[in-house]
Amino acid sequence: MKLRLGMIGGGPGAFIGAVHRHAAALDGMYELTAGAFSADAEKSRAMGGLLGLAPERVYGSYQELIGQERQRPEAERVQVISIVTPNHVHFDPARLALENGFHVILDKPMTFSLAEARQLADVAEASGCLLCLTHTYTGYPMIKEARQLVAAGTLGPIRKAYVEYPQGWLSGPEESTANKQAAWRTDPARSGAAGAMGDIGTHAFNLLEYVTGLPVVRLCADLNTVVPGRRLDDDGAVLLRLSNGASAVLTATQIAAGEENNLRVRVYGELGGLEWQQADANTLLVKWLDRPTEIRRAGTGYVGSLAQHNTRTPAGHPEGYLEAFANLYRNFALTVQARLAGRPAPPEALDFPGVAEGIRGMAFIENVVASSQSQQKWTEFTV
Amino acid sequence: MKLRLGMIGGGPGAFIGAVHRHAAALDGMYELTAGAFSADAEKSRAMGGLLGLAPERVYGSYQELIGQERQRPEAERVQVISIVTPNHVHFDPARLALENGFHVILDKPMTFSLAEARQLADVAEASGCLLCLTHTYTGYPMIKEARQLVAAGTLGPIRKAYVEYPQGWLSGPEESTANKQAAWRTDPARSGAAGAMGDIGTHAFNLLEYVTGLPVVRLCADLNTVVPGRRLDDDGAVLLRLSNGASAVLTATQIAAGEENNLRVRVYGELGGLEWQQADANTLLVKWLDRPTEIRRAGTGYVGSLAQHNTRTPAGHPEGYLEAFANLYRNFALTVQARLAGRPAPPEALDFPGVAEGIRGMAFIENVVASSQSQQKWTEFTV
Amino acid sequence: MKLRLGMIGGGPGAFIGAVHRHAAALDGMYELTAGAFSADAEKSRAMGGLLGLAPERVYGSYQELIGQERQRPEAERVQVISIVTPNHVHFDPARLALENGFHVILDKPMTFSLAEARQLADVAEASGCLLCLTHTYTGYPMIKEARQLVAAGTLGPIRKAYVEYPQGWLSGPEESTANKQAAWRTDPARSGAAGAMGDIGTHAFNLLEYVTGLPVVRLCADLNTVVPGRRLDDDGAVLLRLSNGASAVLTATQIAAGEENNLRVRVYGELGGLEWQQADANTLLVKWLDRPTEIRRAGTGYVGSLAQHNTRTPAGHPEGYLEAFANLYRNFALTVQARLAGRPAPPEALDFPGVAEGIRGMAFIENVVASSQSQQKWTEFTV
Amino acid sequence: MKLRLGMIGGGPGAFIGAVHRHAAALDGMYELTAGAFSADAEKSRAMGGLLGLAPERVYGSYQELIGQERQRPEAERVQVISIVTPNHVHFDPARLALENGFHVILDKPMTFSLAEARQLADVAEASGCLLCLTHTYTGYPMIKEARQLVAAGTLGPIRKAYVEYPQGWLSGPEESTANKQAAWRTDPARSGAAGAMGDIGTHAFNLLEYVTGLPVVRLCADLNTVVPGRRLDDDGAVLLRLSNGASAVLTATQIAAGEENNLRVRVYGELGGLEWQQADANTLLVKWLDRPTEIRRAGTGYVGSLAQHNTRTPAGHPEGYLEAFANLYRNFALTVQARLAGRPAPPEALDFPGVAEGIRGMAFIENVVASSQSQQKWTEFTV
Repeated sequence: MKLRLGMIGGGPGAFIGAVHRHAAALDGMYELTAGAFSADAEKSRAMGGLLGLAPERVYGSYQELIGQERQRPEAERVQVISIVTPNHVHFDPARLALENGFHVILDKPMTFSLAEARQLADVAEASGCLLCLTHTYTGYPMIKEARQLVAAGTLGPIRKAYVEYPQGWLSGPEESTANKQAAWRTDPARSGAAGAMGDIGTHAFNLLEYVTGLPVVRLCADLNTVVPGRRLDDDGAVLLRLSNGASAVLTATQIAAGEENNLRVRVYGELGGLEWQQADANTLLVKWLDRPTEIRRAGTGYVGSLAQHNTRTPAGHPEGYLEAFANLYRNFALTVQARLAGRPAPPEALDFPGVAEGIRGMAFIENVVASSQSQQKWTEFTV
Repeated sequence: MKLRLGMIGGGPGAFIGAVHRHAAALDGMYELTAGAFSADAEKSRAMGGLLGLAPERVYGSYQELIGQERQRPEAERVQVISIVTPNHVHFDPARLALENGFHVILDKPMTFSLAEARQLADVAEASGCLLCLTHTYTGYPMIKEARQLVAAGTLGPIRKAYVEYPQGWLSGPEESTANKQAAWRTDPARSGAAGAMGDIGTHAFNLLEYVTGLPVVRLCADLNTVVPGRRLDDDGAVLLRLSNGASAVLTATQIAAGEENNLRVRVYGELGGLEWQQADANTLLVKWLDRPTEIRRAGTGYVGSLAQHNTRTPAGHPEGYLEAFANLYRNFALTVQARLAGRPAPPEALDFPGVAEGIRGMAFIENVVASSQSQQKWTEFTV
Repeated sequence: MKLRLGMIGGGPGAFIGAVHRHAAALDGMYELTAGAFSADAEKSRAMGGLLGLAPERVYGSYQELIGQERQRPEAERVQVISIVTPNHVHFDPARLALENGFHVILDKPMTFSLAEARQLADVAEASGCLLCLTHTYTGYPMIKEARQLVAAGTLGPIRKAYVEYPQGWLSGPEESTANKQAAWRTDPARSGAAGAMGDIGTHAFNLLEYVTGLPVVRLCADLNTVVPGRRLDDDGAVLLRLSNGASAVLTATQIAAGEENNLRVRVYGELGGLEWQQADANTLLVKWLDRPTEIRRAGTGYVGSLAQHNTRTPAGHPEGYLEAFANLYRNFALTVQARLAGRPAPPEALDFPGVAEGIRGMAFIENVVASSQSQQKWTEFTV
Repeated sequence: MKLRLGMIGGGPGAFIGAVHRHAAALDGMYELTAGAFSADAEKSRAMGGLLGLAPERVYGSYQELIGQERQRPEAERVQVISIVTPNHVHFDPARLALENGFHVILDKPMTFSLAEARQLADVAEASGCLLCLTHTYTGYPMIKEARQLVAAGTLGPIRKAYVEYPQGWLSGPEESTANKQAAWRTDPARSGAAGAMGDIGTHAFNLLEYVTGLPVVRLCADLNTVVPGRRLDDDGAVLLRLSNGASAVLTATQIAAGEENNLRVRVYGELGGLEWQQADANTLLVKWLDRPTEIRRAGTGYVGSLAQHNTRTPAGHPEGYLEAFANLYRNFALTVQARLAGRPAPPEALDFPGVAEGIRGMAFIENVVASSQSQQKWTEFTV
């Protein structure tokens, strides 16, 4: 049976709301049943109509959605709520949803501040409900392959990692135009303490820790605001130390004119290295000291269990961003279904980002901002 | 409102059935409502259960599905039927569905033989129903961009085209193993007159005519059966002439060991050329005589109306095979919905393959087989 | 000691003459000592001056060069003569040089006609002198690696090969401009029976036979003259059979607008395949049925003896076209030096194209032209 | 007339000596006439013999070479001396050569220390002789194109740059093996204050300043010694500020297992960006905010004057590392010849690295080492 899904946010003009809907739809494991798509009830209703929802399941606010769905019979009410609003409207609806017994899918970064994230973690734990944080990029099968290869020691102890996330779409003062995406992302009151570092730096940070399996313990950040008048960073670079002493470099920018969304990660151990970039997402390069680089490909018979579990088609049928996103939704659905059925979830389904990753992401934002403002070279990574 | 969808074929172990289901689901425009997933009623029921269908909408045969759905009230019965069976079970269910007033989505090639295809065309016309033939690759946004650039004369008159489709999965005698996909595709009684040329050569042929906008008028084919004991061609090359006198080369093989699904097309006019390959599907290279090659990318602001209509995410968020497939489903849904509402379909939605492409594809198979058996160099392309 | 080199052709405006001089210079194994750079004695002298030759070693005709060098003391006269003239001026100077005891480096194709090539082969044999034919592309280290892998049976028996050579520089009527390269290459009186097929098709043919180690035994050609008024083919495609029954496809065109010099070869056996393209010349992709594709790279420790012998720098220091060309010169020098010293040449130095390849190349031109004019599908490859 | 060249260093087992010889030979502008190839006179003589030098021009020490060549008649003695020894043997022979009136080609980094570099600059100026420092990578035509595009303002004011130089060949303790290259490069007494940063970081730094045309004014460095027992850094990352306020990130490592020599640079301005990597050296990607990325290619008609001047073959005939190196030699030869002839050098020939770049490179090493040892985030770049 499909899980009944409610959505908070994702009204007209939103980017990520539509992505969540595609991701939820792709595998037929969710039925979008209810929504509070906008704080403007009219707009919410219009979007609900477009999406073919029953009018009585379209709400004018998230409070209304959660309150009224809570009243519905268990067999009818939504089971999972996706929250796809700007960052400053993550904490309140997530807390309310969890407290009312709904499992939650939450867009990243987890909250507006680290303090909120810590509080939400407590709420989640107390609620007994599940939470998935949509760090999309860890949903890619070849990223999972990378993690599995590193965890198996295939590359030897990790020594060095590079993760870079260049975009160019904020090269000009987009926030002065009608671009709603730009407006809230560059607004400290809606985005939080960081701009580019919060929006995409957190993805890069999550990817780094996910692939290496090593937490960051120290960092040295250099954040910049390149576009005049902008109120948050739109560019930055961070030197890092991982828990085993390895060093890493993370860069994220939204002013690299001409770049699309060019996330790339490289990790090197004593024996070899690996390289992945989103633009060629179904490929993982595995490099060796003394033999030819391998082109590992999604959908082949030789990839590991995680990559296999997170692929739908045979090799040569490229899967992309929506499929990676859908992998998070699918794994979360498998886990929620197991919970509902009172059985353990399949281990490979448990591999989705959640509260722990959310807290570390918020800590990253706060540590990076603090480091950037400091004259001291190294800042300990504190949570 | 979602269109109610019935499916014929796509039981356990099928490859393309699952693809059709993902494609139908992605945009939330269809609700899979009924199915005859296997000629084995037990298997059909099991699959229906897995998919969460109401048991009374799961049928033991396509005849049963069509017959019983026909009886249901109009507001309840399926509106579109997807046929995802092997080639020899295309014609009968498609005819029956059309004759009973259902719109049809049909996997390629259209039928078992050209004669069947011609007959089905007549049935479709008489029925007044719509038919979509899933030549996936024309669903890619950058293929649509290519077609639009050529049609606009951007490259000048077309002079030369290459289309190649190498796969390696039939390098060994897979049909002697438990591989169901290999078994029917290499069986003349189920696949038709051609093996590789029917399975993937037709895709390449369709892509060639779609991008150039020029029909093939003459050909010279060399088909081979490389794997001992195989009963149909598993490899071939075809020299072609297009209606304007341009020449082309088409190759398709399933014994290129180590190749995945490496479809590529290149077209050259007087002023420039273009190149696309599925492995990098969101990119179209546009080459010029006297200035730098351009990397055109899906999801950007500068691509044409067709590419824009067939993309869901901004540049840098790769879309792939399932999205291309979903584009066919989406365009067909928009067209069917317009038909149901009695209004004209939006022009860009009409851009999906149908009866005409199906007939040409079957003619390609028959002409290619005839040419390969002939000692004469050129065979006129007859339909 | 450096070999003393004489050059015939390669005057001002020539393309390939300068390439030969770079190739001869790179490894310091030749000293350009004499030249007849142009049939115009004035131009020859001017070029000799530019190149810093002693005036008395610059000649007004090839006859003069050969005649006078022959008179010089053995310790002074040139030992090798490079002939870099248009095709119709290959046979006479080559014959004269051989008959006078000079070793010869000859640009491809070998001669103006197959009959000339056969005759030159007899002259060469009678003379006891050595001849190198500059099929550049077999000088690339990763092409040598490809040949060695195939010869070792690594891919299993060969089943299929594709070789393609698209250029775009003759997309317009360049021969009507001041472009000397275009003028002679499109002139039947200077180029021979074929245009594009002679100029670059012979390279592709040579590469096919070199990598597979299999001679072509049958072919079906389709040659075209695309640019109005042109007197030779500027485009073509050829279906081929190799001696073991494998099939192949060769395409060569000079009207693919926007293509530079995009030679590519792919070969598939029972167990795997390989792919090389000149644009990424230091890489050889080796593909497998059931494990990741390997990126083999020039200059690494794991490549075979031929690749190692033909590389000057460690991996990651790209070598290119001039180095490939220089490999022919270097191997020829090693062989000539061994001959002069009365010892056997090192086996890896003997790996350069010569008379045998030249005859097959000329036979290719004649067979391809005959096949293209025939209505019969297959033409036996005769020499 | 060819310039007479003497070489100091480059004996058996040396890497860069052979590269210099190829670079000097390629264009026929130098004649290797004399050498002190090793501090071991026997080895020097053996190498001289291999290279075909007259025995009396092969010396047992650089002092001997310089002293005796100085005695020869002007028309006979070497005019240019190449110094290709380890870093600690740069200053003394360079000074001696300059003081004796020889033009000098010097491998990078310029000297063992910044103090030496400053002193050598004074010597060079006093001598009136010319000095070329072989920062190879600025010899690539598409790097010159990049510089020219930036200088012309094509990208708008520069905002961000990334330069990265990963190698993997020092992933293990190579200095404990017979690897002479590893031995001296990791030895503080022969390499200088830095290991990887001196060996390849200086290349990256030079490339950054060359392409952007902007000097570094401040930096924050993190150097690491990854391989146990190693005595110098083998890895590092540097945050930088350029003179116009733009930020940059430079990484260099020799422990990225599986990487060859993967130099890459990206620069972004207000209007667009550019990307170049050595592995695809003949391509420069030029990216734009609102139109397709351009693939600019060496050897085409549309590239600028510097790229054209530094290319030997038409587009599609890849040139590589040796050609880039040879461009330095060629430009230096043109400049020296002009000097000898008493005429001004052609402006495009003057574009080779020299004393100024050498001093900045040495300052980079010292600033980077100081910064890495400091707890303070930013270190002003002092020379």
